[in-house]
Amino acid sequence: WLYGSLGPILLLHHDGHAPECVVFNAAEVPIEWEEHFVGDKVDPRTESFLTWESLESVRRNRVGLKGPMATPIGKGHRSLNLTLRKELGLFANVRPCYSLPGYKTRYDDVNLVTIRENTEGEYSGLEHQVVRGVVESLKVITRQASLRVAEYAFHYAKTNGRQKVSAIHKANIMRKTDGLFLKCCREVAEKHPEITYEEVIIDNCCMMLVKNPSVFDVLVMPNLYGDIISDLCAGLIGGLGLTPSCNIGEGGIALAEAVHGSAPDIAGKNLANPTALLLSSVMMLRHLNLTDKADRIHNAILNTIAEGKYRTGDLGGSASTRDFTKAVCDHL
Amino acid sequence: WLYGSLGPILLLHHDGHAPECVVFNAAEVPIEWEEHFVGDKVDPRTESFLTWESLESVRRNRVGLKGPMATPIGKGHRSLNLTLRKELGLFANVRPCYSLPGYKTRYDDVNLVTIRENTEGEYSGLEHQVVRGVVESLKVITRQASLRVAEYAFHYAKTNGRQKVSAIHKANIMRKTDGLFLKCCREVAEKHPEITYEEVIIDNCCMMLVKNPSVFDVLVMPNLYGDIISDLCAGLIGGLGLTPSCNIGEGGIALAEAVHGSAPDIAGKNLANPTALLLSSVMMLRHLNLTDKADRIHNAILNTIAEGKYRTGDLGGSASTRDFTKAVCDHL
Ligand SMILES: CC(C)[C@H](C(=O)O)[C@@H](O)C(=O)O
Ligand SMILES: CC(C)[C@H](C(=O)O)[C@@H](O)C(=O)O
Repeated sequence: WLYGSLGPILLLHHDGHAPECVVFNAAEVPIEWEEHFVGDKVDPRTESFLTWESLESVRRNRVGLKGPMATPIGKGHRSLNLTLRKELGLFANVRPCYSLPGYKTRYDDVNLVTIRENTEGEYSGLEHQVVRGVVESLKVITRQASLRVAEYAFHYAKTNGRQKVSAIHKANIMRKTDGLFLKCCREVAEKHPEITYEEVIIDNCCMMLVKNPSVFDVLVMPNLYGDIISDLCAGLIGGLGLTPSCNIGEGGIALAEAVHGSAPDIAGKNLANPTALLLSSVMMLRHLNLTDKADRIHNAILNTIAEGKYRTGDLGGSASTRDFTKAVCDHL
Repeated sequence: WLYGSLGPILLLHHDGHAPECVVFNAAEVPIEWEEHFVGDKVDPRTESFLTWESLESVRRNRVGLKGPMATPIGKGHRSLNLTLRKELGLFANVRPCYSLPGYKTRYDDVNLVTIRENTEGEYSGLEHQVVRGVVESLKVITRQASLRVAEYAFHYAKTNGRQKVSAIHKANIMRKTDGLFLKCCREVAEKHPEITYEEVIIDNCCMMLVKNPSVFDVLVMPNLYGDIISDLCAGLIGGLGLTPSCNIGEGGIALAEAVHGSAPDIAGKNLANPTALLLSSVMMLRHLNLTDKADRIHNAILNTIAEGKYRTGDLGGSASTRDFTKAVCDHL
């Protein structure tokens, strides 16, 4: 474990040439890493592949960066992601999504942020068989979690120069659950008259996103809708290899993460696109108020993509993780 | 009410110049319409704006066409759509979605069909408050409804020259409910080895749809995912004004419909895009085995769009409903 001047930062992965370490070194970011390797075996204290120590570390450090992790196969344990969210009270998942000049997709006009409630809703884990052939699952919406994520969304909009918050829902069908979610959003919206507030039904939202994503700014929504819409948005700009993510937790915890898994066929082979991870590490730096370093690294990443010389396999190129990372360092 | 040689067909809307009537007349389709006007007042026997007579009519005729209906505002009654689905056992909603030459969007490679379970899932209507600030809704998945829609999907694939069925799910989270849905799809898939079968998680599915929709063929899924994905797909090709829909019900009922509502600002103003309704009426004709008529009208619609002279407001043009309809007749 390494301790640095800014206190230790948790690093939840390591595949030999962690791009964020390389870039942070090159940019002289005053951070040293505290490393945890997870995924080897189930820790009985967390009932998952996540070690108890790694959780303790995030709690202590209040900040962390989670690398792409191959999802361990096997049963009888909780998912890594779900355990992290639950244990650390990671109530909001924030995913900025913007068109990257230099990487052409069908869209060049995406610039939005999805903010997803991350702890309840359809992810309650409450399911049962009523009789043979009839199963039910419970979606749980609480006033507390809805207010919390709505407040975070408006706070985010305000502190990031955003103009509008759209609450995404299906309250025409789930009148009580999504209805409560909307009620909470409205209450919070009233306290922030300088931010435009609107409500959009999820099916219509998806249609608008693929037709004209530029109409959206900040979107806030219950868990499953956030899961769906954030991936849809990632697709608009090129995929999960390009989109950063940060989870906001109780007591000011921020756990940045590359959302994409490390696909078994490319794991450890120096082939993954490090962009999502690097952009996530920039979100972490902003959370630590290391704004200059964040800006510098962010620009270097954007310039590397704009230059277009190094493209990893997911974007149709043949550059390695290391090639791309080195190019980012060169652009610093 | 009108009775024709082929037995009566229910028509659930009328705004003076029903495009389907005009086109069917021009194409000499041997059908006469049985008209029902709904939306005026709540019928206590259906607890909705749908009249009991209109339901009886579909049951008797086994086929119908529902026009765009302005959603009546007010409370204490069930939605028109939900009432129709429930009362008529409309278990599958089928929406073919294909790029229309002549109407340019960001996509020219869409050619897929979404098949949505239409009776249960997140639409159970079962919701309650547990304590103040905590509400729950129940998602219900049954073996019966899942098998039924899966069987329909494979039947559809086979009879429409399709190669692949993708079951869309979130069984990594909703292991029991979506797990049961998948299990049923797998059972049915095994009976149809000539059709490729795959399973795709909904978030990933949405990302793939916006990146490369041509990888999909037939998609089958639980209710809410179908609601979301079918609208997303409509967005890819230009919106709900262009996508037909047909609901398949118990005992061979087929209720074709234009999914879009008639927006209050354009209702009855001769401004709506009749394409979705006309393409839906073609689906109805196919159900009646009036294949020649169906082909002829279908081609006339596609040619009118390809010609590009008449565009309604939703597509950025200024043609009226009647202009477009007349052009279709000219192309017959
Ligand atoms: C892997 C899965 C459990 C997870 C989710 O559904 O939340 C993922 O899709 C995500 O978005 O982080
Ligand atoms: C209007 C609404 C109840 C309906 C639904 O959610 O099913 C609509 O979106 C649809 O897709 O037909």
